[in-house]
Amino acid sequence: MKDELVWRFVETVGEKNALLPSQDLTHYTHENRDMFVGKTPAVLKPGSTEEVSRILSLASETGTAVVPQGGHTGHVGGAVPDETGKQIVVSLERMNRIREIDLSGNALVCEAGCILEAIQKVADDNDRLFPLALGSQGSCQIGGNISTNAGGTAVLSYGNTRQLVLGLEVVLPSGEIWDGLRRLKKDNTGYDLKDLFIGAEGTLGIITAAVLKLFPCPKGKSVALCGLETPQHALELFERANHVAGQSLTAFELMARNPVEFTVRNFPAVKLPLQEIYPWQVLIEVSSNRSEEDASSVLQPVLEEALGAGVIIDASIASSIAQQKGFWQLRETMPVAQKNEGGSMKHDVSVPIHKVPEFLSRADHIIKDEMPHARICAFGHMGDGNMHYNISQPVDADAGEFLSRQASINDMIHDLVIEMEGSVAAEHGVGRLKRKLLLRAKSEIELQMFRSIKEAFDPNNLMNPGKLI
Amino acid sequence: MKDELVWRFVETVGEKNALLPSQDLTHYTHENRDMFVGKTPAVLKPGSTEEVSRILSLASETGTAVVPQGGHTGHVGGAVPDETGKQIVVSLERMNRIREIDLSGNALVCEAGCILEAIQKVADDNDRLFPLALGSQGSCQIGGNISTNAGGTAVLSYGNTRQLVLGLEVVLPSGEIWDGLRRLKKDNTGYDLKDLFIGAEGTLGIITAAVLKLFPCPKGKSVALCGLETPQHALELFERANHVAGQSLTAFELMARNPVEFTVRNFPAVKLPLQEIYPWQVLIEVSSNRSEEDASSVLQPVLEEALGAGVIIDASIASSIAQQKGFWQLRETMPVAQKNEGGSMKHDVSVPIHKVPEFLSRADHIIKDEMPHARICAFGHMGDGNMHYNISQPVDADAGEFLSRQASINDMIHDLVIEMEGSVAAEHGVGRLKRKLLLRAKSEIELQMFRSIKEAFDPNNLMNPGKLI
Repeated sequence: MKDELVWRFVETVGEKNALLPSQDLTHYTHENRDMFVGKTPAVLKPGSTEEVSRILSLASETGTAVVPQGGHTGHVGGAVPDETGKQIVVSLERMNRIREIDLSGNALVCEAGCILEAIQKVADDNDRLFPLALGSQGSCQIGGNISTNAGGTAVLSYGNTRQLVLGLEVVLPSGEIWDGLRRLKKDNTGYDLKDLFIGAEGTLGIITAAVLKLFPCPKGKSVALCGLETPQHALELFERANHVAGQSLTAFELMARNPVEFTVRNFPAVKLPLQEIYPWQVLIEVSSNRSEEDASSVLQPVLEEALGAGVIIDASIASSIAQQKGFWQLRETMPVAQKNEGGSMKHDVSVPIHKVPEFLSRADHIIKDEMPHARICAFGHMGDGNMHYNISQPVDADAGEFLSRQASINDMIHDLVIEMEGSVAAEHGVGRLKRKLLLRAKSEIELQMFRSIKEAFDPNNLMNPGKLI
Repeated sequence: MKDELVWRFVETVGEKNALLPSQDLTHYTHENRDMFVGKTPAVLKPGSTEEVSRILSLASETGTAVVPQGGHTGHVGGAVPDETGKQIVVSLERMNRIREIDLSGNALVCEAGCILEAIQKVADDNDRLFPLALGSQGSCQIGGNISTNAGGTAVLSYGNTRQLVLGLEVVLPSGEIWDGLRRLKKDNTGYDLKDLFIGAEGTLGIITAAVLKLFPCPKGKSVALCGLETPQHALELFERANHVAGQSLTAFELMARNPVEFTVRNFPAVKLPLQEIYPWQVLIEVSSNRSEEDASSVLQPVLEEALGAGVIIDASIASSIAQQKGFWQLRETMPVAQKNEGGSMKHDVSVPIHKVPEFLSRADHIIKDEMPHARICAFGHMGDGNMHYNISQPVDADAGEFLSRQASINDMIHDLVIEMEGSVAAEHGVGRLKRKLLLRAKSEIELQMFRSIKEAFDPNNLMNPGKLI
C-alpha cells in the first residue's frame, strides 16, 4: 500500500492512535495460537463512532479492505488480517466507555471495545446481572462477543449473546452510521437488521456500540458436581433437573474423565470434590431469586432422586460460595490444562441435546479406530447440546506427527456432526478457519442467501474479506 | 389475469384445493375489520411444501404476485390481496400437521397452518408449555405468528415469537425450498437467516414449517389484580416484582379505568375482583416450577410491601385456578368490549418501559386537547413497554365523524412515540396499514437496508408486494 494512502488512514484517528509496521504489531496480526499470521499496513484505534465512520468512508472510496478487531480472543482467526499486507486493522480497544446504565429499563449502553468483565462489574455494582460469561472474559471485548454471537456458560438460561442485545450502533461499509440503539422489548417495524449484524463476524459493517439487557441478580445459587457412568445418564439427569428447575437451571456442564484428570494434575490448587474421578462428571447449577437455601431446596431433591434411581453415582454440593467457585474453577481451567498435555485437536460442535450421548459414542469410536492412543478430552455445555470435543495427543508422542492428522480427523468428526443435524461451529464462529468447512456443512441454497446478503451490504467485499463467507 | 394462467396455478394444488371468484372469497380478500377489501383471481390451498414450491416457481416464471395468508387475524392488512385482482392468495390452512414432538429436546416441529391453540394443546398434552398466547389463538396460525413476530401476554418471561423459534422451512420466491429446520440451541455457522424471515410478513418467502421451543409446564401460578392511582405507581410495582421474581414474573398487564368499565358493562359475566374500579389496574402473574403455594409466596410479600408503601391501593389474589382464569378474562375481553362502545382508534406502540408513565401522560394531554369527550382506552403489556393506546368515541357521538379525525390523531400519537424512541408497530407489524408510517419512523439509512434485503431476496417484488416495505 502506498505511503500516501496509509497516511490518509492514519489521519482519520490521529498519529498517536495508529500503529505502523515499524512497531511490533504481533498482537494485532497473529492469531492467538499462531494458526494464522498476517500483515497489515496500519493498525488504527478510533476513539469514536465518527472516527470509525471516517475510516470506512476512506476504505470505501479507495477500495481498501478492513479487518475489525476486538479483544483478539477468538479461536477461528476471524480478527486477523491476511498475508497480503493490504488489510487495515481497526481495533476498537479505545472505544471502551459505558455510555449509560438504565436501571429501571434493565439496560446498559456501551461501546464495542468494553471488556466483558468490566461490563459484568458495572452491572454487579448496580445490583444487576449481565449473564454473558466466558473463559476469556478478562480480555475479550463486547463488540467481538456480539460479532461472533458468543456462547459461554450461561446460555442455558439466558441465551447466547444474540438474546442479550436490545440494540446496536453500526458503521456500514459506506461509512454511514446506523443508529439502531433501541431499548425496546417489542418492535416489529421492518426486517430484523440487528440479528443480521450479530454473528456476522464484521463482514457487514463494524459494530461500535450496543444496548445490552440486564437481569436481576440471583440472590443465591446451589452448585453440585456429580459423577456418572455414561453421557446417557447425564441426559437423564438433565431432563430431571430441567423438568423441576426450568429457567432457574443456570448451568449443566459435562466433563469426561480426561479433562478432569488433566486439570487436577496440572493445577494441584484445583481440588476434586468427589471420591474419585468417574467416567463422566456433571457440574450443575440452580439459581434462585430468593436465597441460596431456596436454590438448594430445588437442587437437592433432584440429586437425591437421581442417586436413588442410579442415574448418578456420586454427588457433592458446594457448601459455601468459595466452594461453588472452586467447582467452577475445575470446569474453567480445562482449556488451559489441556494445553499442558501437548498437541490437541479441537471441535466446537453442537447437536440436538438428546443426541449428545450418541454423538459422543460415535465420535469416540472414530477416534479409537484412527488414533487408539490419543486421549479424548470432551467437555462442554451439554445443556445447550454444545460439546468441545477435543483430542489430546498420546502421552510421549510427537506433537507434530499427531497434528499432521488434524485435517482428516476434523473432517471425520465434522461429517458426523453434519449427519446428526448438528452445527460445526456452535459458539466460536466460522472466521477463517472454518470457511471451507461451511461450504460443506451448508446447502447451496443457504450459501446463495449468504452471498446475496454480503453482496447487498458490502458489494465491494471490503469488510473483513476472507472470513465467514 | 388470463384464465389459462389461473388454471396453471389451480393445477399446482388440484381443483378441489382452489377457490375462484365465482365462489365467496370474502374471508380471504377482506381485512377482518374491512379496512382493506381486495380481489384475487384464485385462492390456493397447498397441502405440502412441494405444492407451495410449485406455486412460487410458477409465480416467478410468470411474474405473478403472491399473498401468503394464515389465520387472517392480523390488524394491519398484511395478509389481504390488493384491489387489482392480480395477486394470488396462498392460504396455508391445509398445512396443519404436527410433524414431530421431541420431548427430550423440548422441541416441536409443525407446519405453518397449525392453529396456535392446537399447538398449545399438543404441548400441554405432553406436559410441556408452548408459551405464545394471544387473543386470537383459537384461529391464528403459527405461520402468521412467525411472519409477524407476534407478541401477546407471555412475552415478559418467554420473549416474542422470535425467541420461541429454533428453525424454519421456507419456500423462497424462486420456488426453491430452504430446509432450515434446525433444533440447535447454538449454531454460529453464518448469517442469521431465520431471524430475517421471522417478522418479514411474507415479503421474502413463505414459511411452511417451523421448529418451536417447548418449556416445562409451570407447576403453579399466582395471579393478582391491583388497583393503583397512576402509571408511575405501576412502574414502581413492576420494578419491585421484577427485582424479586425475575424470570418467574410471567405477566404484568396495565389497564386504565375505561377498558375495565367497558368490559364489566358489556360482559356482566366478567367480574371485577376489586372493591371498585381504580384509575389504573394491574394484572400480575408469577409462575413457579414447584407449586401454586410457592408462586404465591413470591407474589404475596411483593403486594403486601407495595400496599404498605402506598404503591398500590387495593389488591386481590385469585384463590383458585378458576378465579385466575376469571382475572385473565377481564384483560382478554377488553378488545371485544371496546368494539361495543362504538368507533375506536388504535395504536399498538411501545416505549422503553420506564417511559410508559410519561408516554401515557403526554398522549392523554394530546387527546384531551383534541377530542375532550373521547374516551381513552389504554391497556397492554406494560412489562414489555407495549401499550395498546386506543381511543373510543364519545358517548352518543357519530362514529363516522369521530373516525374522520383518525389520520391526524394517529399522526400525533405516533410522532410522540417516535420522539420518545419507541416503536409505532410494537407487536402487530406493519402490513399495509403502517407502510407509509414506516417511512416516517425509520431513518433513510435503515430504509435503504430494508430495500437492499428485499431486492436481494425478491428482486421482482412478487412476495406480498405493497406490505411492510
